[in-house]
Amino acid sequence: MYSFKNDYSESAHPNILKAIIDAGLEQNDGYGMDSHCENAKVLIKKAIQCESADIHFLPGGTITNSTFISYALKPYQAVISADTGHINIHETGAVEASGHKILDIATPDGKLTPELIQPVLAQHQDEHWVQPKMVYISNPTEIGTIYYKTELENLSKYCKENDMLLFLDGARLAMGLTAKGNDIALIDLPKLVDAFYIGGTKVGALFGEALVITNDLLKKDFRFNMKQRGAILAKGWLLGMQFEELFKDNLYFELGLHANNMAYLLKTIFEKAGVSFLGDAPSNQLFPILPNWLLEKISQKYIISVWSKPDSHHTCARFCTSWATQETDIISFEKDFSEMLINKK
Amino acid sequence: MYSFKNDYSESAHPNILKAIIDAGLEQNDGYGMDSHCENAKVLIKKAIQCESADIHFLPGGTITNSTFISYALKPYQAVISADTGHINIHETGAVEASGHKILDIATPDGKLTPELIQPVLAQHQDEHWVQPKMVYISNPTEIGTIYYKTELENLSKYCKENDMLLFLDGARLAMGLTAKGNDIALIDLPKLVDAFYIGGTKVGALFGEALVITNDLLKKDFRFNMKQRGAILAKGWLLGMQFEELFKDNLYFELGLHANNMAYLLKTIFEKAGVSFLGDAPSNQLFPILPNWLLEKISQKYIISVWSKPDSHHTCARFCTSWATQETDIISFEKDFSEMLINKK
Amino acid sequence: MYSFKNDYSESAHPNILKAIIDAGLEQNDGYGMDSHCENAKVLIKKAIQCESADIHFLPGGTITNSTFISYALKPYQAVISADTGHINIHETGAVEASGHKILDIATPDGKLTPELIQPVLAQHQDEHWVQPKMVYISNPTEIGTIYYKTELENLSKYCKENDMLLFLDGARLAMGLTAKGNDIALIDLPKLVDAFYIGGTKVGALFGEALVITNDLLKKDFRFNMKQRGAILAKGWLLGMQFEELFKDNLYFELGLHANNMAYLLKTIFEKAGVSFLGDAPSNQLFPILPNWLLEKISQKYIISVWSKPDSHHTCARFCTSWATQETDIISFEKDFSEMLINKK
Amino acid sequence: MYSFKNDYSESAHPNILKAIIDAGLEQNDGYGMDSHCENAKVLIKKAIQCESADIHFLPGGTITNSTFISYALKPYQAVISADTGHINIHETGAVEASGHKILDIATPDGKLTPELIQPVLAQHQDEHWVQPKMVYISNPTEIGTIYYKTELENLSKYCKENDMLLFLDGARLAMGLTAKGNDIALIDLPKLVDAFYIGGTKVGALFGEALVITNDLLKKDFRFNMKQRGAILAKGWLLGMQFEELFKDNLYFELGLHANNMAYLLKTIFEKAGVSFLGDAPSNQLFPILPNWLLEKISQKYIISVWSKPDSHHTCARFCTSWATQETDIISFEKDFSEMLINKK
Repeated sequence: MYSFKNDYSESAHPNILKAIIDAGLEQNDGYGMDSHCENAKVLIKKAIQCESADIHFLPGGTITNSTFISYALKPYQAVISADTGHINIHETGAVEASGHKILDIATPDGKLTPELIQPVLAQHQDEHWVQPKMVYISNPTEIGTIYYKTELENLSKYCKENDMLLFLDGARLAMGLTAKGNDIALIDLPKLVDAFYIGGTKVGALFGEALVITNDLLKKDFRFNMKQRGAILAKGWLLGMQFEELFKDNLYFELGLHANNMAYLLKTIFEKAGVSFLGDAPSNQLFPILPNWLLEKISQKYIISVWSKPDSHHTCARFCTSWATQETDIISFEKDFSEMLINKK
Repeated sequence: MYSFKNDYSESAHPNILKAIIDAGLEQNDGYGMDSHCENAKVLIKKAIQCESADIHFLPGGTITNSTFISYALKPYQAVISADTGHINIHETGAVEASGHKILDIATPDGKLTPELIQPVLAQHQDEHWVQPKMVYISNPTEIGTIYYKTELENLSKYCKENDMLLFLDGARLAMGLTAKGNDIALIDLPKLVDAFYIGGTKVGALFGEALVITNDLLKKDFRFNMKQRGAILAKGWLLGMQFEELFKDNLYFELGLHANNMAYLLKTIFEKAGVSFLGDAPSNQLFPILPNWLLEKISQKYIISVWSKPDSHHTCARFCTSWATQETDIISFEKDFSEMLINKK
Repeated sequence: MYSFKNDYSESAHPNILKAIIDAGLEQNDGYGMDSHCENAKVLIKKAIQCESADIHFLPGGTITNSTFISYALKPYQAVISADTGHINIHETGAVEASGHKILDIATPDGKLTPELIQPVLAQHQDEHWVQPKMVYISNPTEIGTIYYKTELENLSKYCKENDMLLFLDGARLAMGLTAKGNDIALIDLPKLVDAFYIGGTKVGALFGEALVITNDLLKKDFRFNMKQRGAILAKGWLLGMQFEELFKDNLYFELGLHANNMAYLLKTIFEKAGVSFLGDAPSNQLFPILPNWLLEKISQKYIISVWSKPDSHHTCARFCTSWATQETDIISFEKDFSEMLINKK
Repeated sequence: MYSFKNDYSESAHPNILKAIIDAGLEQNDGYGMDSHCENAKVLIKKAIQCESADIHFLPGGTITNSTFISYALKPYQAVISADTGHINIHETGAVEASGHKILDIATPDGKLTPELIQPVLAQHQDEHWVQPKMVYISNPTEIGTIYYKTELENLSKYCKENDMLLFLDGARLAMGLTAKGNDIALIDLPKLVDAFYIGGTKVGALFGEALVITNDLLKKDFRFNMKQRGAILAKGWLLGMQFEELFKDNLYFELGLHANNMAYLLKTIFEKAGVSFLGDAPSNQLFPILPNWLLEKISQKYIISVWSKPDSHHTCARFCTSWATQETDIISFEKDFSEMLINKK
């Protein structure tokens, strides 16, 4: 069965595999202190146009979030997140395990705004409450929406005014910054957030995320926190090699754009059939609301995720395209889907 | 100014102070291994009619909650609480600091039910989510409501069916179990919950809570967790002496009833003036909704807490009576209040 | 049986009890925000001659150590301690429970020196090791020795040179600073350490320690850490009242001196009998090395602690005198001891 | 420069790389729920002859140790380790960061025995001390020594008798079990320890360790702890594929034996030159004690680690061979070494 379950169902982009193979038995220093990591950092700094950034390569998203957040906060400080935020629901309490409360805010489109945050700050006034100190956002969000530049600027300004840090989870940053309608450039991020990560796992790498720290106060001794949390890979050059490939010749954003384009093709198929969607998700995750009988038929040939149940006759599913999705895969789906619609009974 | 701010504004009941004074320079073993603690445990076991319970004396409520919860849960397990629960909002993230997520549930009356909990369990299905393992309730709740016996029985049954622990925070247990309409007896608790604590700080003690553990699986080596968290007082007999007094001749519940009775007198005053209340709170906390001008006048002579702002012209205040509130204090207030109403302009 | 087991076997000094009784039903603000705490802070600041110090009252020693240490360190930082240090062996891993390694150093006299610390720093050079950031000492030490001024100055200088904090546990500070030979004054401490605590529990209080923070970088939001760890007592004024009494008219040091003097009387008794001691302990803890038969006889009439077993025929015992030990208690012991020696067979 | 610095300086064995390449764009379920992981588990269960074992694949050694130890211990429990143990010195306090004290024991050969552990247990008797609950060993140890079967059996028996868990870190298990003189078979381990891990990173994998849990009480919900600590890789099949290759046709132990054989060749070179060694290390780590001038010369052509400084004229170095070390590398070194000896002046 073909899987639209997520964007990390396939191995890595051929360039990445080739780089690893080509290295042969080359000896490298361990723990990310090698020339590949150094070179990848140079490429990323150039791409983000921020020479002073500190860049670290970590093996996965959950460990990147918990390593950074636990580093940045004092024991009594909390992080604000959308209730749908990955740290709040899909990381098995990793942030709390490091001692910090997540103040979650209900938000229909997965995005945070100063207006949504204000009541939380108003409520947390003294030492009987945790101290909100960081705002965590994802772009795209968990439900596929994206931040627009004005929104991010407002949030950034609000955080600075309220002495809070702003951290952006970019697990799918390539898709976010190449989505239809996006007006944020990679070079905007260092100016607007204190730290963000450039996700590799969901954008064609075997594994690996590049954490970019731009706030000088959050740089000192960060590798200690990484090592303590098991986030420094012994053969760290494997991460360097992958990001060298991703940031050489713009491959990273090409892969993101490709995943989005495959989603748009898929979207057209649903739209033609009159299917509606959960919100406006312009990146590589689609949330069509399907009649249950149709979802059942699709599930016999395709692996997808069930997202929610808007009513007893319909199910909201998640279709996720990836850097590896082929146009032929979409065409096959279109054919199958048409037949399902025709053979309804 | 007279304070209705809370029920721990005054020192301890005279019997307690007398017991401490009378002990003179009596030498006692440290860390709660003394005869007063032993005797207090005997008295409490008799009162709860549960010989097999393990009883521990801890200095305060926050440390009792965090010491017990951190002991009972595995690292990836979470505790379910009303969003208004003390552990969720007034303990500066103590539970999270011990590594555990609180899954908070919005509830208008501060009480949890199987129906409210069910969707949370339904959502938490695999290792990408924390594992809900404990339900935390307070009786009375943070907003002064009380559980009725059927409610507690249903919750208890539901927890057992779903392999969850039920923990009851009894910071104001004396008031809860002597409130108008209450149908829960102290001896019901060991059968319905896995652990609960009998609050002393808010019921006439200088400080101290008696944690009662009835689930055999939660007893082994508990004192290790207490010591580690600084919850074993060197001069532990001070706690034993206080609970000896509170559980000799039913003083504990007499003090709770007295606090409630003082609140009822106060309530009548507000009711006569046509003041409405936030929900039905039959214990020693009253939440009258007052016009702002009246609250301002009251605040010039009385210390109270502001609870919430239902609209721009009204404020919900909290008036809290205590074991030490005198009927004359209420009469004085009535006089002042009448004058304020008359001299409105 | 009379107990020389420790210096917290008796209740509080009469002045302290009187102050609590005299307060009657006086209403006070909770959580240490009351006038007694304020007044006690003024008295202590005067005594230490340091207006800028931040002072907090906590209920006990373990919780003071873990609350301060967990506040001061980043997650990957460690605290250096003598292997006999209280935090290393008698606090059930409280410091580790807050996430921090203790780097323990073997030291025959319980005291740390730059020379002893240097090899530890030399070994901890990069992110694969924890980062030593604090030196924890007690004065007197766990084995009754005291620091001399030059020693403390050298340690202080060394810590500053190596960017480490110096924290002094003063559980028995009154005895340390009134011990024979002591040349450190209370007013020296703010200049030499970043924080220290003035122990009340072992010096005539019911409970309570006064934490003094002099390093400006360690002051911000400290009460958040206190509240989170359950270290803020609801009826915090009880702590304020006790330290008001202890620091009014020099009572604190009088009690320490008295405990020491009782120990000296006891020491003379042992010395006359030719008993030798474990090291030089000039404060209120004596560590006589006794033949086993004699210890057994003593144990039939007196409660003491067994400290170590230097050989199969001898036992090192700990005799601890307190603020409440009476000269008549020592005289009784002398009489009993003489008889035991005479009736050896 | 050629590196003898460690055994993870080179990429992966060609078979492993080929398996990854051959998979192409094969789609797999995420998080280790794929057929490769399943198959690798079958192969390992067969190799260890223990069908009932639970096997999990984690990305590295530090995260394997901390994930397992934090899962197995209650908050107040401690783990016993040789002072040279990897968890004690080279993991930046990861175990303490999860809340647990390490009780480290000085041991000249890096190995623990019941005799060495006994005094620690004797000392830890009540709730004022942490509770020793696990013994952590490595085989080979950090200093290259290996456990013999009788030693491991004695330790296993002692742990059971004292209600402690025994956990074996097998980062270099392949080298340990193929070392000269070794008499432990892989199939002995499930009977003697509660859990162990089979290290891949140092034995020809790109990364990855296989944790084997044989104690039934330590199996439930372990994946929750993994996910929380970021130890579940999204593309988990990469781990499965690697262990499929390592445990197909005995490759794992062939690579270990090869590394050892290269070390033995190297050892002969040193022995011929009369060089002495730090202890008896029969696996792939050599600790020759070299005159400083010679070490300096070697360091100009080879990357090695400095281990310790036995005296001012000598340095103990670590030479580490790997699965990728070629006999020609050793021959080159022999040639260089001879010349250095000849051209001393």
